Amino acid sequence: MRAVDLIRKKRDSGEHSREEIDYLIAAYTRDEIPDYQMAAWLMAAWIRGLSRAELAALTEAMLHSGEVVDHSYLPVKKVDKHSTGGVGDKTSLILAPIVAAGGLAVPMISGRGLGHTGGTLDKLEAIPGFNTFLSLSEFKRVLGQCGMSLIGQTAEIAPADKKIYALRDATSTVENIGLICASIMSKKLAEGVDALVLDVKTGSGAFMRKEEDSIALAEVMVETAQRMGKKCVALITDMGQPLGRTAGHSNEVIESIEALRGAGAADLRDLSLELSAWMFYLGERTKSVEEGRALAVETVRSGKALEKFRECIRLQGGDPRVIDDTSLLPGARGRHKVTSAASGYVEDINCLNLGIALAMLGGGREKKEHNVDHGVGLEFHKRIGDAVKIGESLVTIDYNAETRLDTAQKMIAGSYQVGGKKPPERKLIRRIIGG
Amino acid sequence: MRAVDLIRKKRDSGEHSREEIDYLIAAYTRDEIPDYQMAAWLMAAWIRGLSRAELAALTEAMLHSGEVVDHSYLPVKKVDKHSTGGVGDKTSLILAPIVAAGGLAVPMISGRGLGHTGGTLDKLEAIPGFNTFLSLSEFKRVLGQCGMSLIGQTAEIAPADKKIYALRDATSTVENIGLICASIMSKKLAEGVDALVLDVKTGSGAFMRKEEDSIALAEVMVETAQRMGKKCVALITDMGQPLGRTAGHSNEVIESIEALRGAGAADLRDLSLELSAWMFYLGERTKSVEEGRALAVETVRSGKALEKFRECIRLQGGDPRVIDDTSLLPGARGRHKVTSAASGYVEDINCLNLGIALAMLGGGREKKEHNVDHGVGLEFHKRIGDAVKIGESLVTIDYNAETRLDTAQKMIAGSYQVGGKKPPERKLIRRIIGG
Repeated sequence: MRAVDLIRKKRDSGEHSREEIDYLIAAYTRDEIPDYQMAAWLMAAWIRGLSRAELAALTEAMLHSGEVVDHSYLPVKKVDKHSTGGVGDKTSLILAPIVAAGGLAVPMISGRGLGHTGGTLDKLEAIPGFNTFLSLSEFKRVLGQCGMSLIGQTAEIAPADKKIYALRDATSTVENIGLICASIMSKKLAEGVDALVLDVKTGSGAFMRKEEDSIALAEVMVETAQRMGKKCVALITDMGQPLGRTAGHSNEVIESIEALRGAGAADLRDLSLELSAWMFYLGERTKSVEEGRALAVETVRSGKALEKFRECIRLQGGDPRVIDDTSLLPGARGRHKVTSAASGYVEDINCLNLGIALAMLGGGREKKEHNVDHGVGLEFHKRIGDAVKIGESLVTIDYNAETRLDTAQKMIAGSYQVGGKKPPERKLIRRIIGG
Repeated sequence: MRAVDLIRKKRDSGEHSREEIDYLIAAYTRDEIPDYQMAAWLMAAWIRGLSRAELAALTEAMLHSGEVVDHSYLPVKKVDKHSTGGVGDKTSLILAPIVAAGGLAVPMISGRGLGHTGGTLDKLEAIPGFNTFLSLSEFKRVLGQCGMSLIGQTAEIAPADKKIYALRDATSTVENIGLICASIMSKKLAEGVDALVLDVKTGSGAFMRKEEDSIALAEVMVETAQRMGKKCVALITDMGQPLGRTAGHSNEVIESIEALRGAGAADLRDLSLELSAWMFYLGERTKSVEEGRALAVETVRSGKALEKFRECIRLQGGDPRVIDDTSLLPGARGRHKVTSAASGYVEDINCLNLGIALAMLGGGREKKEHNVDHGVGLEFHKRIGDAVKIGESLVTIDYNAETRLDTAQKMIAGSYQVGGKKPPERKLIRRIIGG
């Protein structure tokens, strides 16, 4: 088999066999196919598309380019959740303790924030001492002890994806449903899960702004997982405004602890419980999603979920006292209120710009190698549909440096569209695909 | 400007500005853009296409990636011909002496044979001592002395094309009219010509088998040359059967000498005179193509064209005695006749397979780094439309090694379709574009 022939085939809209895709990925991972040939193939695949069968083969080949974690030592089912990312999306920090407390194992390999989105690893690292760089054996040990562990991608996990992702970034071949699916699913399935719940965001703060694009990605991911014998469901959820009442690192940890105490914003609680419910159901812990929801509520009510989070923090080297004393988390020096210039209703929010403003203040990164400031954050006081008076606070900014504060606050103020018309109620969970 | 943005633009079917193309080619030539980014751009350009304006800009940028030969020391117009390649196409060896003898300068930078096609450089190298590796200053000296010189591409000529061509070869982005045009035209215009005559082949022995594809390529090349202020015409000519009565190296030199004596096959003579006529006309040596044809005939009749060829051979280090004693050319040890298995008319010829059979015998190369055997060759006894009797010779093979003779002769025999129906007359020159 020759790479040049495979490139020609995809260029001419041909469909690859499983053997062809296996060869392409294995040889590229071993550096036997040069970057320029893979770049040409990626562009052909971007433009011509990949069939569902090709996608399943690609995902599987990327998955098997590295280690698939073996959790057979665990007597329970392993389940995980993946979100396509947004602003204020902290459900992982809430549902992982809930599901672990409910008796399943959650082996979660997460990512970092990039651009306007936050990342689970960055949020956890706001907790003093919390180590996300566990080796696979440490990961297994923590998982075995408390039923949950949250780490970053290791060198053993889907190395083909790591190589291909860097190349896609440099060759404008990122935004393609098939390639996105293969990248996400190869990493997630390498965790060794039995079932996967996907939270596919849609709206102004999501990578896919149009609902039909989010649905298309969700369908492809669910089908790919199912072809590989994994249970999978995707919830299409609203990212037209921030999830919960905060974005940032320390403050999202605080909000997650609140939620694990049964308090906090309704949208965050509802989504966390709903995703947990699906994880219980697909992980065969409950006979229905409804039962799963009840179990999730119970783990929060009993305090077991919060204790599970505390245990995980301790096992991963973090300071478990943050659960009771959130002042141990990094803070901000200054506080600034962004107020409304008009009275009326919040008609719309540019959620993307809120994420960018946060990044601008140091609470996000523009490039992978940048550091984030865990102390800065945004607190949102108004949601779409809320009534607001002139001069009333829309957002409170916690900042450490004043350099870009002015630009950030203008950006935030401009993100809120206040007018005379109360917009229709927004549905948080738009659609459920698969399951 | 960033390569990744240019790739995205072409991926999304955008049209590049001249500045963008200049940047892309200049930065790639200087190794500032890596191969993998150029590979992704090439694939996007292959699939999405290039506009005529983009093509002119690309050709010009590639042309100016290296030296454009300055022939201002010559008092006459410089003209050249380029053929897209075929089997038995030796017109360069005939028309260059004709046009030089007629008073114009022919600075011809040629290529080598690849696959089933022959190359002018390889044919010339059948002449003992003939040196095709002249430096640009030697090239100019020979051109100044005898009005013609034939060399291979030097490092100074269109280095961007050299780099890009190698990459296209490895990434399945060769067969694209725009990219072919830019490659050919950047090299040909770097010769410093005032006018260019294109011989775009069509039929079973051509790279473009369908006439509409040949026409499309011709139109693009002519328009690109004209946009760059060069006179240009393209003749769409038949490559449904070999041109002339031989293919190979020594035997094509012999046939060219014959043609320069006014003898030989009618199709070869007609096409050589027609191409020469256009070169005279576009080079403003004559007022019409008809006058050009008369001048071409006269240079042959007077013997001046043959003397010009002798002079050029001598100046480029070759043995000029081959003109009178072709036994000085490399020969073949054995001779084999391929005969017809049926009586009737030659209804069709698979010209591609004749070229492949010749390459198989050593008279062509499958890869660029291979050597060719100048002594082997094919002599064709029947053309499409000729009557043939069972057992009558179709082709005489001159061979040196018997190893692949059997396969080659079967391939040759199978290339002739003999049947009861006399096919309609084939037109050699199908169409004239531009001029």
